Amino acid sequence: MEKPAQNTDAQNGQVQEATKASSDGSVCGYDSLHQLLSENLKPHLFQEVNRILLGLNRGKALETISLPESAKALSSGHNFDLQASCFLADKELLREPRIVRVGLIQNSIALPTTAHFLDQKRAIFEKLRPIIDAAGAAGVNVLCLQEAWTMPFAFCTREKRWCEFAEPVDGESTRFLQDFARMYNMVIISPILERDVNHGETLWNTAVVIGNNGNIIGKHRKNHIPRVGDFNESTYYMEGNTGHPVFETAYGKIAVNICYGRHHPLNWLAFGLNGAEIVFNPSATVGELSEPMWPIEARNAAIANSYFVGSINRVGTEVFPNPFTSGDGKPEHADFGHFYGSSHFSAPDASCTPSLSRHRDGLLISDMDLNLCRQIKDKWGFRMTARYELYADLLAQYLKPDFEPQVISDPLLHKKSP
Amino acid sequence: MEKPAQNTDAQNGQVQEATKASSDGSVCGYDSLHQLLSENLKPHLFQEVNRILLGLNRGKALETISLPESAKALSSGHNFDLQASCFLADKELLREPRIVRVGLIQNSIALPTTAHFLDQKRAIFEKLRPIIDAAGAAGVNVLCLQEAWTMPFAFCTREKRWCEFAEPVDGESTRFLQDFARMYNMVIISPILERDVNHGETLWNTAVVIGNNGNIIGKHRKNHIPRVGDFNESTYYMEGNTGHPVFETAYGKIAVNICYGRHHPLNWLAFGLNGAEIVFNPSATVGELSEPMWPIEARNAAIANSYFVGSINRVGTEVFPNPFTSGDGKPEHADFGHFYGSSHFSAPDASCTPSLSRHRDGLLISDMDLNLCRQIKDKWGFRMTARYELYADLLAQYLKPDFEPQVISDPLLHKKSP
Repeated sequence: MEKPAQNTDAQNGQVQEATKASSDGSVCGYDSLHQLLSENLKPHLFQEVNRILLGLNRGKALETISLPESAKALSSGHNFDLQASCFLADKELLREPRIVRVGLIQNSIALPTTAHFLDQKRAIFEKLRPIIDAAGAAGVNVLCLQEAWTMPFAFCTREKRWCEFAEPVDGESTRFLQDFARMYNMVIISPILERDVNHGETLWNTAVVIGNNGNIIGKHRKNHIPRVGDFNESTYYMEGNTGHPVFETAYGKIAVNICYGRHHPLNWLAFGLNGAEIVFNPSATVGELSEPMWPIEARNAAIANSYFVGSINRVGTEVFPNPFTSGDGKPEHADFGHFYGSSHFSAPDASCTPSLSRHRDGLLISDMDLNLCRQIKDKWGFRMTARYELYADLLAQYLKPDFEPQVISDPLLHKKSP
Repeated sequence: MEKPAQNTDAQNGQVQEATKASSDGSVCGYDSLHQLLSENLKPHLFQEVNRILLGLNRGKALETISLPESAKALSSGHNFDLQASCFLADKELLREPRIVRVGLIQNSIALPTTAHFLDQKRAIFEKLRPIIDAAGAAGVNVLCLQEAWTMPFAFCTREKRWCEFAEPVDGESTRFLQDFARMYNMVIISPILERDVNHGETLWNTAVVIGNNGNIIGKHRKNHIPRVGDFNESTYYMEGNTGHPVFETAYGKIAVNICYGRHHPLNWLAFGLNGAEIVFNPSATVGELSEPMWPIEARNAAIANSYFVGSINRVGTEVFPNPFTSGDGKPEHADFGHFYGSSHFSAPDASCTPSLSRHRDGLLISDMDLNLCRQIKDKWGFRMTARYELYADLLAQYLKPDFEPQVISDPLLHKKSP
């Protein structure tokens, strides 16, 4: 999994050397779309492309923020990218700005999947330690890790032995992170494979929310479980039973839309209706399946629901011990594809940050004034023009087995065929 | 409104000369994002950018389709762009392909807004005539015009005299298009300002759906009415009362999500639940307000609902006789901003076409195999994993004045402030 990569300088976002990866799903080796465009377009054209692609509508670059040398030293010493920027909001007369520093971590696994499970997990802990320390040094208030971060994303194998990675909500991985939460006064979202011992060893795909005092505030279980092609996560865990909780933390109201839930606009909506200001989307998804959707869905959710979104995807190709087929007529193979990273933030004003690398571990930091959420609600009025009563009624009708869709047929349809 | 522009060749998508527009919201003059990137990136990099931005995940270009010389002659003779491409779908064993050729027209108005209203309207008719003829010559099956196509988009003025442009569903503009529908065996969607005489001269923002035999199949009235900043269309018309109809035509099941409805994922959803295979989004929107949202929302709708989307925005800057203010503290001015065109198609597999120009009139044509909708539903399973019962219940609760959001507060929230 290790790549001979150099690092991104947080001050200027310049990648010093792009990793040329093979079989990563791209048709040419490059690091991120943003880097490709910045290196190959003249500055005034790059600025215009950013106006559209990053939603920097006033022709301005996102402001960068300066990070302490200790964070940069961890980045260069431990081979992970460090990028930081800042979303802008208007100053208000009756409220102080509510600026929160938020971090996302994307990473590859640390040991081959053939290693002892305990070694694999502990090696990921050790790999993450300097990245979390960098977040702490940088003053990150809320930090989110990637989906099922303690393990390889082994669900493509359909082998049950990977269930051993599951932990209770107060298990080893939570305890590992609680120490950091206390040390850095930081809220940490920890998406894990959960083992629910009190309910007969039920497994769940769960995000544990750890408060800035190290306490467990609560958990959320993935609402929508993918069955895409033959990739069926319900082999391991079922649809979550925790609703759409919003966690009121010391740094704002946050929620977690886990992975495949990003394809469901109603799931995003529900977190919005419950008052979320930042929704995290920890994911694990590969290039051939979803890469063109990745820049679309999170931004749409941020726009439609007037909140910030933090999107995380793991990186690298995870090779498993036993080859498997994938229900597509192709020969057996030992990996699920290239996890393309590209973690990023989206804002309610339709702007977004450049993404992290498609190949390398990284910590993405952004300052965001949560006041922007209400400012955009006041400007655009999506909630007040939403006519929820129409949709409550439609969904209630749709649930009935004898639902009849509203169709107006051309009465001449069968009189003259085209 | 006329621009000294040359035309796009439909075969290669190359723009021969970009119009350099001033005050169009861009930071440099250019024609479309696609053209900017194609002219300034090396081919292999452009291919990779397209893989992400256009969702051409297999590294392939969208296939172009050849159009008859008569259509090209109309394009070059009447100064409108003509672009055409083709979405691919898998071949099925039990169904024949259902390939439909769909067209979108974007245009600026034809006369100054100071001209006699009848002259303004008739001049738009004459301007559109060769573009519709080109669609007919090209064999377009379903054609959609832009929002309120018979008039300048005058609602920013707040002057009531523009109401005179309103017409009944069977009025002059409908009759104008019915002739084309019969002549070309073509379904035409005509978004107009509607005057509902039977209900006391009520105005609506309405799409009239004309069948391929020239008959009026039905109408749909805009569901969500913008109140964005001080731009409030409910000065002219209110929320539609036609639900979310899907029109079963000779060429598939189509629906119309008018303009501001594109910001409402539930509106998109409702057309999907009613079975739409193609949803048109005729719009009128300006750069400073919405341009970064434009490439996002329609594509997200196509992905989330497994249907095709045709997005249309008018082009040009419309200058009105009487200056007006816009509730933003800025001096009075006489225009709403630059309508940035950029009409395009999105597909359920996350791919999309390059957009039409930001400045010029154009006809965008795409072939689409409607079988792709069900193929994507079978692959991704969004409907079956949607858990609509959760959301029917949540929306019903949310509608109650005493709705309590699902919030889990950190119990230590007020013990140690950050």
